[in-house]
Amino acid sequence: MKDQVREILEKFKIEGEFHRPPPPPSLLPQFIDHTLLKPEGTQEDILKLCREAKKAKFYSVCPNPCWIPLAKKELGDSGVQLGTVVGFPLGANSSDSKLEEALWCVRHGANEIDMVMNIGFLKSGNFKSCQDEIQRIVEKAKVPVKVIIETCLLTDEEKVLSTLLVVQSGAAFVKTSTGFSTGGAKVEDVRLLRYASQGKIKVKASGGIRTLSQALDMIQAGADRIGTSSGMKIIEEAKGVPL
Amino acid sequence: MKDQVREILEKFKIEGEFHRPPPPPSLLPQFIDHTLLKPEGTQEDILKLCREAKKAKFYSVCPNPCWIPLAKKELGDSGVQLGTVVGFPLGANSSDSKLEEALWCVRHGANEIDMVMNIGFLKSGNFKSCQDEIQRIVEKAKVPVKVIIETCLLTDEEKVLSTLLVVQSGAAFVKTSTGFSTGGAKVEDVRLLRYASQGKIKVKASGGIRTLSQALDMIQAGADRIGTSSGMKIIEEAKGVPL
Repeated sequence: MKDQVREILEKFKIEGEFHRPPPPPSLLPQFIDHTLLKPEGTQEDILKLCREAKKAKFYSVCPNPCWIPLAKKELGDSGVQLGTVVGFPLGANSSDSKLEEALWCVRHGANEIDMVMNIGFLKSGNFKSCQDEIQRIVEKAKVPVKVIIETCLLTDEEKVLSTLLVVQSGAAFVKTSTGFSTGGAKVEDVRLLRYASQGKIKVKASGGIRTLSQALDMIQAGADRIGTSSGMKIIEEAKGVPL
Repeated sequence: MKDQVREILEKFKIEGEFHRPPPPPSLLPQFIDHTLLKPEGTQEDILKLCREAKKAKFYSVCPNPCWIPLAKKELGDSGVQLGTVVGFPLGANSSDSKLEEALWCVRHGANEIDMVMNIGFLKSGNFKSCQDEIQRIVEKAKVPVKVIIETCLLTDEEKVLSTLLVVQSGAAFVKTSTGFSTGGAKVEDVRLLRYASQGKIKVKASGGIRTLSQALDMIQAGADRIGTSSGMKIIEEAKGVPL
């Protein structure tokens, strides 16, 4: 696997450039997971998040697991998807607990799962456990799984290696960041993750994306989805008028 | 309950002063939970943590749940306790998932659980859910439970209220901080938590404690346990010589 990683990084230097045309403002909301994960978020905050998502037609809302029943009820049949986070934000829970948490979330209405990879296992060379953990959740949860690799803690080699593990595990997305570590999404990382995944899975950029310009940069670099708490601000910027 | 909180805060202003004599250096290690919770910690880091704890005779080690089986094996019958964290660090998981995680940890060898209170529930006025969640874990896990209330996100009223809920839930400790939020343990908070808990439960100070002077300040203010990743440095300082 190390040879494969090295080869991908070499090729990326030569052919990694990528510029996707930006979406028209009307399509931008469908790129956005409207996110609220701060632990002090209240019931009122979650209801507001859901109402905003319905109004703006965001792709989904993404609250913490304890709010799923409330968000499910508030979203109703609006068509806004309900994502959530598992093993968040450290990813250092037991694999069993992560699986149980994912299944609880799906049973209570989540239809997308953003889980954090076990970064310590990766850095210990225990790639099999990293992949098995994801694979088990993909197979049993039966919803699209996004795997957060926390790029700010990884070397470029580890970013590529993680992406390959995520591809092999059957997940739907590789995702850059939790937003709770030392750094967020970087354009160059989005480009690298897109290149390493070779179109087999999608890329979600998240962490520190607060402006239209940042969101468009990520999408143009290859992000298929944007996780942000600033969705309303971003689409207002895009329209040039308040919603 | 609001009247009770107000009364405690009023009385605290008058009679909250507290100075416990500092422990002799030889007893200091028994105040320390030797902690490593950064997500990128490796297998080698955890083994080192356990070996240091055995050598220094710390009260316990506190790694993330995924490392419990490894730490259990490494600690053997050394007498060093094995703590871990549940619902960490956001506390915004479902109550079911937190309970399942706690039980998994105990089944695999943990004999202390540091869980994070649901801060969003508290701030939404849903005190019953906060308390029920803790109580269920206390009753089913059957090990000492420490409840992290994340003081940096709370008002003084909320700190006292949380402490009362923790007391009523049957937990063993109220704990200041995760070390992953906007601030760590403060001497004044330790004093307030000690006062509000009226000796019915113990107080653990954690987050940002990196020096002997800080550790002693916390203990003198009423902390019965110190959570820190700098335990070796602290006891070396205390002895005045490297271990």
